Amino acid sequence: MSFYYGVDIGGTTVKLGRFSGDGTLHEKWALPTRTGENGKYIFDDIAASILSRTVEAGGSPSQIKGVGMGIPGPILPDGCMEVGVNIGMRHVYPAKELSERLNLPLVCCGNDANVAALGEAWKGGGTGFSSIFLFTLGTGVGGGAVVDGRILQGSHGIAGEIGHTTVNFAETEACNCGNRGCLEQYASATGLVREAKKVLAACQTPSLLREKKNLTAKDVLDAAKAGDPVAGTAAAAMGRYLAWAMSWVSHILDPDAFVIGGGVSAAGEFLLDLIREEYAERTKMLLRKAELRLATLGNEAGIYGAVRMVLGQ
Amino acid sequence: MSFYYGVDIGGTTVKLGRFSGDGTLHEKWALPTRTGENGKYIFDDIAASILSRTVEAGGSPSQIKGVGMGIPGPILPDGCMEVGVNIGMRHVYPAKELSERLNLPLVCCGNDANVAALGEAWKGGGTGFSSIFLFTLGTGVGGGAVVDGRILQGSHGIAGEIGHTTVNFAETEACNCGNRGCLEQYASATGLVREAKKVLAACQTPSLLREKKNLTAKDVLDAAKAGDPVAGTAAAAMGRYLAWAMSWVSHILDPDAFVIGGGVSAAGEFLLDLIREEYAERTKMLLRKAELRLATLGNEAGIYGAVRMVLGQ
Repeated sequence: MSFYYGVDIGGTTVKLGRFSGDGTLHEKWALPTRTGENGKYIFDDIAASILSRTVEAGGSPSQIKGVGMGIPGPILPDGCMEVGVNIGMRHVYPAKELSERLNLPLVCCGNDANVAALGEAWKGGGTGFSSIFLFTLGTGVGGGAVVDGRILQGSHGIAGEIGHTTVNFAETEACNCGNRGCLEQYASATGLVREAKKVLAACQTPSLLREKKNLTAKDVLDAAKAGDPVAGTAAAAMGRYLAWAMSWVSHILDPDAFVIGGGVSAAGEFLLDLIREEYAERTKMLLRKAELRLATLGNEAGIYGAVRMVLGQ
Repeated sequence: MSFYYGVDIGGTTVKLGRFSGDGTLHEKWALPTRTGENGKYIFDDIAASILSRTVEAGGSPSQIKGVGMGIPGPILPDGCMEVGVNIGMRHVYPAKELSERLNLPLVCCGNDANVAALGEAWKGGGTGFSSIFLFTLGTGVGGGAVVDGRILQGSHGIAGEIGHTTVNFAETEACNCGNRGCLEQYASATGLVREAKKVLAACQTPSLLREKKNLTAKDVLDAAKAGDPVAGTAAAAMGRYLAWAMSWVSHILDPDAFVIGGGVSAAGEFLLDLIREEYAERTKMLLRKAELRLATLGNEAGIYGAVRMVLGQ
């Protein structure tokens, strides 16, 4: 029996999955992310956890064949992560760190958003396509690209970083990143709420949203679905900016499909309908356009994508 | 001795180059592009020309080892070009057509802009980088991407088609493509002249450009270099829109470098300076940014890129 592991390192938890060589997920679990000491404990914890789960499952360390890992930071072509802000790491070679602890040659590491894209391409909303671009609409906006079945990493590890692409050059409010007009300011859960509040403040139109105390992205999307005009305006802006970003991706990268995940994507087909028309308008010259799909793996996209990097190698 | 050929099919001429296996160009020439009959004559002419040049150079057909070809149209992953408007082709498999005529297995074909990008990456302004994005600023705006030394073709053969990416959503005039606000409307030679005429018409500012009868892009750029305010405004708009497009490419594809070619790039470092500041501003989040370079191969980029596809295979 061979053991393969997919690891998805996040700011608060590390998600892990144990897989067999055919890509079947046998168990999944999570560990708290112990930041500090340049991430040393994180790799210690992952290695210890993988070893103990292998033994618990009736295996031995020599049966561990590969571990793939997604990590929140850009990975340079030589494997170096210069900065991983959320997990307190600087100038670390994550694959090398884990490889040494497990005495295992086959350890791969990629940026978490790119790794999630690989997961969705392999077993999720992008199944059947060889090239996809994943938009993850959560607290922020993440993105990742898979080209011909492989992660597009980029020359500086930042390919797919669509969240801080400027979509509105007239924006006056600052994004978290310091710039103004980033996609994340409109298409994240936070951004959608911000936009809805701006629309509310700028008009007298009656709206379901006026009574809400702690407005959430779900409130806005539910109200938009129900025909609320204020919510509809905010949701339309999100759809329009996503469509623009997609049109740029299509002209530059030309994927088979866009896959949309993250909390906001719970709005389902309604969300895709907000995008379709403007995307078609902005890709008029393109004889063939990309398909729009919803992600299906949720939080498991990371561990699936991670293990995919080491399966079939 | 082995013979390799690079072929660059254009709307009026077909450029050809004869290379040896080490990538040295030994001779280059051109044929008129005979459109009609779905491109049949074009492939006949190319095959005949390659055969006769081989014999003239003291070789025999069996010494022809590979031919690469760039063609003005999108090439699908199966090798099909559905439409090549400028050369009157529809639903053609260009590599297969030439392969049959030469009885040669190794014939490759790619979109002309992508092939030129490969040429610049290999022997031109992008030498030393593994991933580049080429902007060709001529009558129109073309683009092509090379990732890890190989052409990025895209799922529908349109990767790199940056010219018709929308950069100005407020534009009221239509682009040739039917859309409004495409990069080509500002960053092509035609677009730069259009923009300069708009600025001239909208102000009373004295300008060197007011005396010109047939205003050219070179006139505008020369005047801008000389400090002419009207020309400077038009040139600044071109630089800004190019910077925006580059910022999107950096967030999505993350190349090592941008290479700028085409007639407009004769403006040299002055052109790059128009872009630098805004590109840096729009890529604030990116720890490492792409380099800016000028193309160096001119019209030969196509034949170099074409032959590169079949060398080292």
